[in-house]
Amino acid sequence: MLSSREESRGPGAPSGLVSVVRLPQSWFILCSSRELSNKPLARTLQGQPLVLFRNEAGKPAALVDRCPHRNVPLSMGRVVAGQLQCGYHGWRFDGSGQCRAIPGLIGEPGAKSRCASWHATREQDGFVWVYSTPGVEPTNEPYRFPLLDAHGYSTVRRTLRANGSLHSTLENTLDVPHTAFLHGGLFRTEKKRNEIEVVVRRGADRVEAEYIGEPRPEGLVGKLLAPGGGVVQHFDRFLLPSIAQVEYRIGDDSHLLVTSAMTPVDDWDTLVYAVVTFRMPLPHWLVKPFLTPVALHIFQQDARILARQTETIRRFGSETYASTEVDVLGPLILRLLRQAEREKVATSVEVQETRLKMQV
Amino acid sequence: MLSSREESRGPGAPSGLVSVVRLPQSWFILCSSRELSNKPLARTLQGQPLVLFRNEAGKPAALVDRCPHRNVPLSMGRVVAGQLQCGYHGWRFDGSGQCRAIPGLIGEPGAKSRCASWHATREQDGFVWVYSTPGVEPTNEPYRFPLLDAHGYSTVRRTLRANGSLHSTLENTLDVPHTAFLHGGLFRTEKKRNEIEVVVRRGADRVEAEYIGEPRPEGLVGKLLAPGGGVVQHFDRFLLPSIAQVEYRIGDDSHLLVTSAMTPVDDWDTLVYAVVTFRMPLPHWLVKPFLTPVALHIFQQDARILARQTETIRRFGSETYASTEVDVLGPLILRLLRQAEREKVATSVEVQETRLKMQV
Amino acid sequence: MLSSREESRGPGAPSGLVSVVRLPQSWFILCSSRELSNKPLARTLQGQPLVLFRNEAGKPAALVDRCPHRNVPLSMGRVVAGQLQCGYHGWRFDGSGQCRAIPGLIGEPGAKSRCASWHATREQDGFVWVYSTPGVEPTNEPYRFPLLDAHGYSTVRRTLRANGSLHSTLENTLDVPHTAFLHGGLFRTEKKRNEIEVVVRRGADRVEAEYIGEPRPEGLVGKLLAPGGGVVQHFDRFLLPSIAQVEYRIGDDSHLLVTSAMTPVDDWDTLVYAVVTFRMPLPHWLVKPFLTPVALHIFQQDARILARQTETIRRFGSETYASTEVDVLGPLILRLLRQAEREKVATSVEVQETRLKMQV
Repeated sequence: MLSSREESRGPGAPSGLVSVVRLPQSWFILCSSRELSNKPLARTLQGQPLVLFRNEAGKPAALVDRCPHRNVPLSMGRVVAGQLQCGYHGWRFDGSGQCRAIPGLIGEPGAKSRCASWHATREQDGFVWVYSTPGVEPTNEPYRFPLLDAHGYSTVRRTLRANGSLHSTLENTLDVPHTAFLHGGLFRTEKKRNEIEVVVRRGADRVEAEYIGEPRPEGLVGKLLAPGGGVVQHFDRFLLPSIAQVEYRIGDDSHLLVTSAMTPVDDWDTLVYAVVTFRMPLPHWLVKPFLTPVALHIFQQDARILARQTETIRRFGSETYASTEVDVLGPLILRLLRQAEREKVATSVEVQETRLKMQV
Repeated sequence: MLSSREESRGPGAPSGLVSVVRLPQSWFILCSSRELSNKPLARTLQGQPLVLFRNEAGKPAALVDRCPHRNVPLSMGRVVAGQLQCGYHGWRFDGSGQCRAIPGLIGEPGAKSRCASWHATREQDGFVWVYSTPGVEPTNEPYRFPLLDAHGYSTVRRTLRANGSLHSTLENTLDVPHTAFLHGGLFRTEKKRNEIEVVVRRGADRVEAEYIGEPRPEGLVGKLLAPGGGVVQHFDRFLLPSIAQVEYRIGDDSHLLVTSAMTPVDDWDTLVYAVVTFRMPLPHWLVKPFLTPVALHIFQQDARILARQTETIRRFGSETYASTEVDVLGPLILRLLRQAEREKVATSVEVQETRLKMQV
Repeated sequence: MLSSREESRGPGAPSGLVSVVRLPQSWFILCSSRELSNKPLARTLQGQPLVLFRNEAGKPAALVDRCPHRNVPLSMGRVVAGQLQCGYHGWRFDGSGQCRAIPGLIGEPGAKSRCASWHATREQDGFVWVYSTPGVEPTNEPYRFPLLDAHGYSTVRRTLRANGSLHSTLENTLDVPHTAFLHGGLFRTEKKRNEIEVVVRRGADRVEAEYIGEPRPEGLVGKLLAPGGGVVQHFDRFLLPSIAQVEYRIGDDSHLLVTSAMTPVDDWDTLVYAVVTFRMPLPHWLVKPFLTPVALHIFQQDARILARQTETIRRFGSETYASTEVDVLGPLILRLLRQAEREKVATSVEVQETRLKMQV
């Protein structure tokens, strides 16, 4: 077993209160660039209501979605000349939360007690990112999606929503055994014939599992994806704070990268901004209409499980996690999330490698 | 700034638990006289379920809406000969909560432990008033609506409901700056041109703001309301426990008095019994059909804001109030409510007067 | 008054937190034999989610409805060769909760931390009974319904659901005064003319009330049920943990036994497995279509009251019980339930007899 934190807490019995991870000092996607136009946009991040708008320069701004004057959500107001105007008394705030106008008041509006709380933002790769700690200018930058403009690659973007915690959704995305079982008909068969090796590499802010010896898809699909033959390379990766990446290479010609940037909307509600980048020896216009419904079908199966898992945890008021060796990444992801929550991410860059075997 | 209690508690950050005012020893309207006929009527006052009925003499009675025998709501029973009969075992209670009959029992029904809790009542001005503290005979009487039968005046009554706390609904009703902004098209324009003076008069159980220098309505409306010209007099008043009154005089001929008696049904649910009394130099049958839809439109705008304010306070689990000088009455109303809640209403009758300026 | 525990806690005022009885070491019916086929069946017992299934031998098994691996409800899985298979990763459990298969894992699945919690079961009288304490083999057996196969008797079974606590539902089933009032038109008239005697017999795990002197039904019904005349014998019985029994004998020819085994699904949700056994001097095919709708009508009246009672208790956050002498069994039932809850059921077999009078 890989993680002592994740040991079972007894057979099915309640085992203490549920404590969902909340991450400070982290960048999360709150919307696509296109979604943020000339109106305020209400969003929630880790339970905190936020309002996004574009300032006079067109750059995204994020404030806590509550007017400091009388508790009305600022998102029900309007954007006026790059300032956010509350719908109740017309107070106006700029992108840094500074109060800039108070109708009726003779004198200066900008007292400190009248400011709205702000969050740092970035616009990058077609997404608007928001920093989870308010009132500070971050020293790090958001994650960059790889291969977005790479020659010969195509990209598909989808936003999905899961009724699961950030950790459960991350683990689900990077978990191999359940794909064989839950998505059995699609990926792998339940009758396992292959024993493969898994190499796990742990870094300060990430963990990667490499699956060695997976068989090439059989029949026509295999010939289409790797006409020249060749081995399968498969990596599953987690990067703090919330990036899940699945990479497949089949022979020299096929390369598939599914990168999911997850946003913890609330304890049990996670948005998945999925970016699928691929290169294949088939016309890409042919691949896309096939790839998308299969991916959505898989996601729906997973979303159903996550919703039932959440429902059960909330009903019991506790969690139980009896992990085994083949729960390769889940416990390690939770360990990293807990470190990040306590702002104790290791600074060491030495990668630790371990190996195990599993059946697929 | 007028009130130190009401200072902002920091920019948008959670600031402690929400504590909604609950008032003892106070009279509130629970229904109109017409609503209380020969059936029991379930009502809620400050979160407490009550049942109203008429006793043998036709006078209103109010009991806690729970049978002391087996917890069934008495309001699901019947009124039999001026007594309230529970629908489960048929126990009967008179208007003082005394148990008067227990079917099956041989012997006296009236043991003290079998009494239902009662509240004092009054019927006055077409309304049924209930005292908020149970089991005591009050020493004070309910508020009397002025000018109900005055010569030359007409009256319109409306009952409205707001998803707001008693305090928020009172402040909203007596707040000037938001009318210019939220109801801008109707009352005042957003472009302020007039600097006016406000006189604030504070008494032991009330506070009044007089607005001096407000311009007379322009054009046809002005000529109709005050054909002989003359100045505008405008008062906003709050009287403990829950009366909000707006008074306008325009010249010698027009007089408008909107008196709202508010009933805190629950922490975030307030009933507004509004009585509009007016005298105008126009046929009153002409005024009423114009006045009512305008007033209802204004109320709907306010109700929408109050509901979002409540939703936001509950979502954050905290309140923030960054008041300025032009929040003339809100902080003073809250101070009076808090004093009444602690039963520390001052007995001094000396009125304190202060002045300020604002733009309208 | 019979019970000091049940004294009123004051007139209508909140009186402490509500504490609903939960019974350890007790057998409850969770479904009929027919309801449990080859699929897992989700049930709840005293707030605990359970899953029932049949093992390889066809015998019922009950596990806590949560996979120890990742908190998914086992009831959303399948039964495979008498084992319950989780729908997420395919872990399999036998009827004792032992983990028997983990797809992907090389090595033994059966570590102790991977077990699901189990409950003892019995199949008897056409019902599946489950023991309320997990992980123990009981020393007692479930209740046996009397006269099921007795010569000359017929049986009707019905499952009903009440939004009431176990105690409230039991008391309601065995309470005489409310039948006269609530079901007045059906049973007894509100105008009481008869004073009868009640003998109460209290044992270690049961209490019985015998009603002496009840008049025989009048007119045609009386003649049909007891053509030879004769007296009415009427007993109401409670047996721990949750059996309510009403027995009527009219003359020599009519005998009616209504036995209700109650299952506390949750604090305020009780299932009633009613078994009606009777012998009458009328063709039984004639009796059944008459008996059933009358019984269901009575139950619906009671269920409506219990739901309002529950709603009121939850709304007030407290209970009030002003019992009188004619609340014959309710307080005694609660005393027995509280003893069973603390596992302090008396072992004495001496029956204590008391007498009282009431009007019916």
